[in-house]
Amino acid sequence: MINETYKQRLAAKSVIRELSEYATARGAEIGYENVFDYSLGNPSVPCVDGYTRAVIDLHETLSPAELHGYSPSLGNTKVRGIVAASLKKRFGIDYETKHIFMTSGAAGALAHALRAVTKPGDVVLTFAPFFPEYMPYVNDTGARLSVVPANTEDFQINMEAFEEMLTPEVQAVLINSPNNPSGVVYSEATLEKLADLMRQKAAEYGHDIFLISDEPYREIVFDNKKAPYPSCFYDNTLSCYSFSKSLSLPGERIGYIAVNPKATDADILAVIFGQISRGIGHNCPSSTIQMAVARVIDQTSDISVYERNRNLLYDELIRLGFTVVKPNGTFYIFPKALEEDSVAFCSKAKNYDLILVPADNFGCPGYFRMAYCIDTEKVERSLEALRRFVQTEYPNR
Amino acid sequence: MINETYKQRLAAKSVIRELSEYATARGAEIGYENVFDYSLGNPSVPCVDGYTRAVIDLHETLSPAELHGYSPSLGNTKVRGIVAASLKKRFGIDYETKHIFMTSGAAGALAHALRAVTKPGDVVLTFAPFFPEYMPYVNDTGARLSVVPANTEDFQINMEAFEEMLTPEVQAVLINSPNNPSGVVYSEATLEKLADLMRQKAAEYGHDIFLISDEPYREIVFDNKKAPYPSCFYDNTLSCYSFSKSLSLPGERIGYIAVNPKATDADILAVIFGQISRGIGHNCPSSTIQMAVARVIDQTSDISVYERNRNLLYDELIRLGFTVVKPNGTFYIFPKALEEDSVAFCSKAKNYDLILVPADNFGCPGYFRMAYCIDTEKVERSLEALRRFVQTEYPNR
Repeated sequence: MINETYKQRLAAKSVIRELSEYATARGAEIGYENVFDYSLGNPSVPCVDGYTRAVIDLHETLSPAELHGYSPSLGNTKVRGIVAASLKKRFGIDYETKHIFMTSGAAGALAHALRAVTKPGDVVLTFAPFFPEYMPYVNDTGARLSVVPANTEDFQINMEAFEEMLTPEVQAVLINSPNNPSGVVYSEATLEKLADLMRQKAAEYGHDIFLISDEPYREIVFDNKKAPYPSCFYDNTLSCYSFSKSLSLPGERIGYIAVNPKATDADILAVIFGQISRGIGHNCPSSTIQMAVARVIDQTSDISVYERNRNLLYDELIRLGFTVVKPNGTFYIFPKALEEDSVAFCSKAKNYDLILVPADNFGCPGYFRMAYCIDTEKVERSLEALRRFVQTEYPNR
Repeated sequence: MINETYKQRLAAKSVIRELSEYATARGAEIGYENVFDYSLGNPSVPCVDGYTRAVIDLHETLSPAELHGYSPSLGNTKVRGIVAASLKKRFGIDYETKHIFMTSGAAGALAHALRAVTKPGDVVLTFAPFFPEYMPYVNDTGARLSVVPANTEDFQINMEAFEEMLTPEVQAVLINSPNNPSGVVYSEATLEKLADLMRQKAAEYGHDIFLISDEPYREIVFDNKKAPYPSCFYDNTLSCYSFSKSLSLPGERIGYIAVNPKATDADILAVIFGQISRGIGHNCPSSTIQMAVARVIDQTSDISVYERNRNLLYDELIRLGFTVVKPNGTFYIFPKALEEDSVAFCSKAKNYDLILVPADNFGCPGYFRMAYCIDTEKVERSLEALRRFVQTEYPNR
């Protein structure tokens, strides 16, 4: 019989998807260039030329058997080595081939990482604001996601609330820095405090607590800065990466898990991930795409576009009187709505063809998200709509 | 903490993998051309040229955003339509776009199909001999795989045993025709009896019983025949397909589920699969590879090689006095060993550089599998080794 648990979910619609569909429909009426669609986190800049050249070259030079044969279930061994070497060089952690497991994007990475270090009934903590897909990602493993309330001051971590919620049932902590939806990068001080607390509680409870670090936006950081790398602060870290955003390849589903070499069972965790693959039907990402990203491992798309967009939006939002933390990375900004009910706020914005996402699902009611991975020219035109929206709907602020 | 269930599995080694590793190591000693490696089901013929041309053309003509953007979570809509039209034309079933769900190969298809029509605690029946990966595929969903004993006469279905085991707890029946490891194609008569019995029991128990049909070898059928298509015999059928074998693309992880339009909830099953994806980290296969296979949807690699290999091996096995059912398809043959203990039999064969897989894991002890997806020239050379092996080790038969 049809599984009722999954069937009943169909009633709950995705707010982001509905807004995106609305934007598309509205675009059909007035021209999509006139819809200021800030709904979706779909990278707008093209992938690097080197990636395209790599795919074509692989098809022109390798034999079909070399290119399309089964990849080992942990990933192409040479590719894993290239990933390990790149991470070692960049972050100074002694990764080897055995610590890398190739996945179908960050979603695939999280599916493996979560199952490897939790069992049904365990609690996984994350921090508001958070990517709403974490709910099914975690809860469908049989573990339970529990959300630490936001520190709305700067969207770093609310350490008091975290300490209180870090009970013996917690087996893993899931972070996402640079963060979707806030755009904030966790500081070194934040990661140090997080790690200290986790070490202290792990010792107190007598069991490991793993840090699962979801890092699809790791490369998208502004002001010539780098995001502090969580695995440098805490040994029991599984870094979950995707090339979707850094190389603008979201449709290709390619990423990896990097196991900190000092983690418990570091030498066998990738093999455990391989066992998990069998039951969830994963069996590693496309052999061709693994080889292609390995050839452009240290490159990124032109992410300067996102920084320009951030500057334009942030400055205008501040001018208009919004409360907003300046994003250090990603392509999201997360202002406080101008009324308590952010659903009502975003609904009114639609009348100005501004597609904004209310943040109730992100664990931060009263805020809204703008995904500014769109053309800068369109961001510029949207500012006038934003001004009209605020001045007309909220004249007495 | 590390999940002990998965960790403990590491102790159980894969027989096929161990043999394959032995073959590689032995090849390093004596030259791989001298190792008659019948261990792995990795297609030996190249993919069709049209596939290679399609990938290159897609990269040369589409914009990166069109090619690499997020694919809808149920799969590229146009590609789903092309799959539906192809199946409709070939099998006369009224598939539409909404009945097709794109997956990462057959493993991905089964991961979704099983979860959609069972819940933890349910029983899924399959038939010996069976692909050993069905154990984790099914059991990791929380359901339980139960195996109907083989009909060793012709490797069709043991209907008496099936009827007895088709209890009210059974929510799904998993078949694989053409079959790995027997090479046998289920006849129309078999599928009719199977369907009759399932309809009868579903009515008696008052609940649907779904047929999950695993069809990666659907196109690899010999003697100018076609494999009867299970979905034509039973409405509640989910056909799980992979392009791995027909197009020789096992590393690219591309396949689909086709929902019979007359199945219960046929219109929403693909959307239910989409819900399942979220928790298992799937999020649809590579956008590029979806588009590329759609361009060669009705082609196959040169599978005539497998038929020549089947003929050579079958004839020699019969001459040597083996009990063996003639395969109608796939690239497997499944003879009875010449002693009761097929592990001992296959172990002795290694002394003749014949790599054969004992079939205990396939639910059919006393048999062994040969995967003849290797060069015909090598098959020919292996026959002499096979003769020496049999005549030396089993002289008194």
